Amino acid sequence: MLIDIVTLFPNMFVGPFDESMLWKAREKGLVEINIHDLRKWGEGERKTVDDKPYGGGPGMLIRVDIIDGVLKDLKKQNSKVILMDAGGKKFTQQKAVEFAKSDHLIILCGHYEGFDYRINEHLVDKVISIGDYVLTGGEIPAMIITDAVIRLIPGVLGAGMDATVSESHTNPGIVEYPQYTRPENYNGWEVPGVLKTGNHAEIDKWRQQESEKRSRSI
Amino acid sequence: MLIDIVTLFPNMFVGPFDESMLWKAREKGLVEINIHDLRKWGEGERKTVDDKPYGGGPGMLIRVDIIDGVLKDLKKQNSKVILMDAGGKKFTQQKAVEFAKSDHLIILCGHYEGFDYRINEHLVDKVISIGDYVLTGGEIPAMIITDAVIRLIPGVLGAGMDATVSESHTNPGIVEYPQYTRPENYNGWEVPGVLKTGNHAEIDKWRQQESEKRSRSI
Repeated sequence: MLIDIVTLFPNMFVGPFDESMLWKAREKGLVEINIHDLRKWGEGERKTVDDKPYGGGPGMLIRVDIIDGVLKDLKKQNSKVILMDAGGKKFTQQKAVEFAKSDHLIILCGHYEGFDYRINEHLVDKVISIGDYVLTGGEIPAMIITDAVIRLIPGVLGAGMDATVSESHTNPGIVEYPQYTRPENYNGWEVPGVLKTGNHAEIDKWRQQESEKRSRSI
Repeated sequence: MLIDIVTLFPNMFVGPFDESMLWKAREKGLVEINIHDLRKWGEGERKTVDDKPYGGGPGMLIRVDIIDGVLKDLKKQNSKVILMDAGGKKFTQQKAVEFAKSDHLIILCGHYEGFDYRINEHLVDKVISIGDYVLTGGEIPAMIITDAVIRLIPGVLGAGMDATVSESHTNPGIVEYPQYTRPENYNGWEVPGVLKTGNHAEIDKWRQQESEKRSRSI
């Protein structure tokens, strides 16, 4: 899988993408991630990519012609183009699964600025928001999407992790059961007795009940 | 404001927190962010912080005694302790506003592992999830929360940004109106005529209508 990320702040991606699972997935050749500086497609001496909104208002908008230039250079036959925008459709595990089936994702990040709405209407496949909160830019959301997608690629998480089997959000609305490890007693807070019985039928039953209880209370 | 982030992958925070708004907020002295390596509180030669779950199952869990040690060192009188966990309450703009009023946030990130449930029950103030999707760790979610919170601190965004006034999610469910910038016509895609009239009453009315229309369609 190839992921192209286009941003005005390429350096933001240095730490997150060079550590842990993302680094391992790149090392193993399971994913190639390219971070592109949007200014590369900017105009004039100052490499301008944005302008003031028609009709007035605060902030600047990234121009439709600039993004069209980006996509002419990066798009391939089966690319999926994702625009990070607070007004977009909510990102969910279902969308992560869908994106993970793609050969090529192009993720466009704004920062402070919004995007000219014609980008939304004519140039991208999905406009995605990661949640009901306001951020300074689309960079950290692009990291979220990249992380959620890449961990679904077979081979990335490694054998024995079983991560996709029993985890929150694979079944929307169902959260995991409480888990405990040593010490058995800490400050008088004890591990539930059933977990120490070795009776796997009882343990499974208890976990099922706790999982349902927690799902209802959220 | 002081934000302490505790993680097994401190290097992940290098790029995101040294760029853009987060960097400026730190430069201006409006926020102090400390990234702590959880291993500092680990036990033994290998600095162990986790163990296998009681009752079986995949993965490892971060131990309650380890996190208790962390909090004994970091907590102050008015600290708010936030645990990043996929099973937590959903992060929203309202929570960002609430967290921004705090003097001191401590954010605990897990990675692959979950946490011993006693941490959840006895040691933290909030268990927070940023959305309905599965990630490899709490680090990028911790960046999301830090970004959403810090931009609300007066002085961080700078004069003229007006960012908190007309933006998505300040009124939950209300998304912004479409915005356009130059070029006026691109590929035959035109900027709506009303935005070029200079009639501010008409422009406001159109924006209001479009905003409502988009809110309904999401």
